[in-house]
Amino acid sequence: SDAPAKPHPACASLPAAVCRHPLTDGHMNARLAHCEDSVKGRFDMIAPTLKNIAGIPRGAGFAAQAREIAAQWLDYELPESLLDDAWISGPDMKALYAHCVFSALKTSAAQFVDDIRRQVESVQDTRNFFLDCGFHAVDISACSDGRLKGMSRYILRLPISSFTRRKSYAGTLFDVETDVHHWEETELRRFREGVPTTVDAGTRYLKIAVYHTSTSSSCHEGCAAHGSNERKAMEAALERLYQFREAIENSFCCGASTDLLLIGVDTDTDAIRVHVPDANGDLSTHRLIDNAELYRDTLHLSADEARLAVYEAIRKTALETDGWGAGKGEPHDGMRRLVANLLINNLSQIEYVADVYGGRYPDIGHAERFISVGDSFEEVQMRNVAYYARMETLEEGVADMDVGIKIFKGLNVKHGLPVPVAIHFRYNAKVPGSRERAVAKAQRVRDAIKTRYAELDKNGLLFCHLSVQNQPTGSPIETVEDGL
Amino acid sequence: SDAPAKPHPACASLPAAVCRHPLTDGHMNARLAHCEDSVKGRFDMIAPTLKNIAGIPRGAGFAAQAREIAAQWLDYELPESLLDDAWISGPDMKALYAHCVFSALKTSAAQFVDDIRRQVESVQDTRNFFLDCGFHAVDISACSDGRLKGMSRYILRLPISSFTRRKSYAGTLFDVETDVHHWEETELRRFREGVPTTVDAGTRYLKIAVYHTSTSSSCHEGCAAHGSNERKAMEAALERLYQFREAIENSFCCGASTDLLLIGVDTDTDAIRVHVPDANGDLSTHRLIDNAELYRDTLHLSADEARLAVYEAIRKTALETDGWGAGKGEPHDGMRRLVANLLINNLSQIEYVADVYGGRYPDIGHAERFISVGDSFEEVQMRNVAYYARMETLEEGVADMDVGIKIFKGLNVKHGLPVPVAIHFRYNAKVPGSRERAVAKAQRVRDAIKTRYAELDKNGLLFCHLSVQNQPTGSPIETVEDGL
Ligand SMILES: [Zn+2]
Ligand SMILES: [Zn+2]
Ligand SMILES: [Zn+2]
Ligand SMILES: [Zn+2]
Repeated sequence: SDAPAKPHPACASLPAAVCRHPLTDGHMNARLAHCEDSVKGRFDMIAPTLKNIAGIPRGAGFAAQAREIAAQWLDYELPESLLDDAWISGPDMKALYAHCVFSALKTSAAQFVDDIRRQVESVQDTRNFFLDCGFHAVDISACSDGRLKGMSRYILRLPISSFTRRKSYAGTLFDVETDVHHWEETELRRFREGVPTTVDAGTRYLKIAVYHTSTSSSCHEGCAAHGSNERKAMEAALERLYQFREAIENSFCCGASTDLLLIGVDTDTDAIRVHVPDANGDLSTHRLIDNAELYRDTLHLSADEARLAVYEAIRKTALETDGWGAGKGEPHDGMRRLVANLLINNLSQIEYVADVYGGRYPDIGHAERFISVGDSFEEVQMRNVAYYARMETLEEGVADMDVGIKIFKGLNVKHGLPVPVAIHFRYNAKVPGSRERAVAKAQRVRDAIKTRYAELDKNGLLFCHLSVQNQPTGSPIETVEDGL
Repeated sequence: SDAPAKPHPACASLPAAVCRHPLTDGHMNARLAHCEDSVKGRFDMIAPTLKNIAGIPRGAGFAAQAREIAAQWLDYELPESLLDDAWISGPDMKALYAHCVFSALKTSAAQFVDDIRRQVESVQDTRNFFLDCGFHAVDISACSDGRLKGMSRYILRLPISSFTRRKSYAGTLFDVETDVHHWEETELRRFREGVPTTVDAGTRYLKIAVYHTSTSSSCHEGCAAHGSNERKAMEAALERLYQFREAIENSFCCGASTDLLLIGVDTDTDAIRVHVPDANGDLSTHRLIDNAELYRDTLHLSADEARLAVYEAIRKTALETDGWGAGKGEPHDGMRRLVANLLINNLSQIEYVADVYGGRYPDIGHAERFISVGDSFEEVQMRNVAYYARMETLEEGVADMDVGIKIFKGLNVKHGLPVPVAIHFRYNAKVPGSRERAVAKAQRVRDAIKTRYAELDKNGLLFCHLSVQNQPTGSPIETVEDGL
């Protein structure tokens, strides 16, 4: 847009100078920046490297020279077969490109899985924190927009683990039936095994919905599924939350206790807003804390003062919001601690975006590297590396997929590069036959995609990589077909 | 086939004379025959009635005369709009035909629902019988073959109710994940509400799989999903049963107790064979009781003697089968009573087919009236009225649907009649938004069908009726689109 840049909502001195908030974790920010650098760098090296390889004479030395270049710039190998056949009609650059994208994805995923393994302690701490707050399960549904892909690791600073469940849906329109099923499984395990808490412990199931908006361009860069209408996006997410609670209350009597939480993300700055529940657990689109404001207002306090100010903000929001947003008292103690924790975690992310990007992400438009289809690569916690089309069948996901293909026609096809599609499904190794069924599903979806976009496929402009993964967080990604 | 007819396996005097077994229920057989007559008659009246209407002069009196004929022969009305426009280019016989088929379906469904309401006592008795046998839930998966459509009401003589769950899958290849979910819901309700039994009651969840075969033409008229290979059909069903049990044992520790039962149906005679579990609950494709033989062997006994003989057959099969079929002891008392009950119930059905059809059904080939898509009309318990293609999306169900369309090209299209497709989905009124989502699903599947079979659709040879239905057995069928 040509409008003069708005001042940054959290830190007015940006982009000239970055503020330092007393509660932010500079060490973690440095680690996350390194991670983002290495992952994005891996994708960014693909085109220049292949351009180099394209310049090698196509004689007997081609394969060796190409291997040498690859070894220098890429942290994965190029397939022998593609190199060996290059003397015939030149190297197949489209296939090499697809191979590199899929390899960069797999290497990055392995890096994240490795990262998860090194966070065992922090995972345990987070789990204990949730349990301390009185939550025996946490289920987060966000919009599938690529800008929220780093939500756990970056925006909310929650280590991803099997304790929290994360699923993304276009427009945060999560599937109530599936979530009720997860609730049932959780309750049944508590009844049968007393895990993670016994039934008489009085703990609750926490369901969080995350929508998004764009403070710099709220009418254009908000949630596409809701026509970039912020109000619609938050109301839709809230409606689903209430549907979830009602479904459980209607189906199971005897005080089926669930807690709800609604969070918004400003995808320009990664600042969150938290809608504060009242004493009944009810929410309002009008009763919320904007964490960019909270950052700004607490910037010059000491760490202890700032922490108190966060709690005070929660108290005031709960008790003093009037009009549409008025609620019935403060949320319970555990919920207050959770909200405070999320707000404080997110202060670091606001500063991260300030440090790395001058306060606002520059990639307002599309710069995805591949289309992710099926279940998401949930361990890969990074903004905007993939365009994600959730689906069990193309028939259900076709609208999202059409959008993705259109985006990649602009990004890749118009330069002669193919569209890399990574089809991925989770299975449950405890259920016999589950892996085989996940593989068959991936193949069915691949067939449907190749049929629908036959023109691209015929011209070598569509590559599908098929993989499956066992359910527990951090399980290895198993390639089923490398798509070449 | 040109081979001489084999003697009937249960009753050698057939078709000349029908035997009378001491344990059969002649009164119920008469009621069921009346039901079959009225339902099939309703469909059979469509063509002659419409032929009559086609003969009416197309002037001012057309609509009145057509209404008169319809009132005489059909128990539903013809749509005014189709009759009123007949003077323009003649009555739209294809649309009238589709309307009649859908109306006959809905009227029949209402008749079955009515029948269910009048069986309240028998439903309660059956529920108590299952509970007495130690089963707190019964989940039956059969092949979706149309010849098994009357399985509960006719073949097994179990009143259908919400206590038993019935779902059909091509080749009895039921969905393990969905069934585990049903098991979880059942267990959770026991834990939370003590319904229908408390957790310490020691009762079990019973999972039954039903495959089918054809004794007169086992290589051609068996289960199409398994290439009419009887051994494959029963082994596949048994494998799924074991997968189901293993999935639960792997996912939930502490003695997750399920019982398994495998039943085969000879679709020529409706005689069942029951695979008798051993003391460990294990099954064998080689350890079974053939009810046609049991009928023959107990035909000349008194009722009491015959009943004893049934129990003795179960005991002998369990203890004396050797070789491949050898098991480890007798099943528990409740299972023995259940098996005996199923065998005795089915004796009546063997005699029903003898009475009504001379022992073997004449419709070995296809004579279906419509294609049923999505969830089945489970209350409509009648052999071969519909070709059933189970699906959530056409993408998953396309192989079955293609077969159905091919069959109806032979049955209807070659005579110029359209293919009536009844798309039907169940919803759960306790889950907010569930009905809307079922409606949207039906519309999505309808769109996919119209796209795939566009040639038929363009020529007015494809009609889709859309309906939804709340989950509890006997809920009314709600028409969403009448497809005209
Ligand atoms: Zn459920
Ligand atoms: Zn969105
Ligand atoms: Zn489950
Ligand atoms: Zn079959």
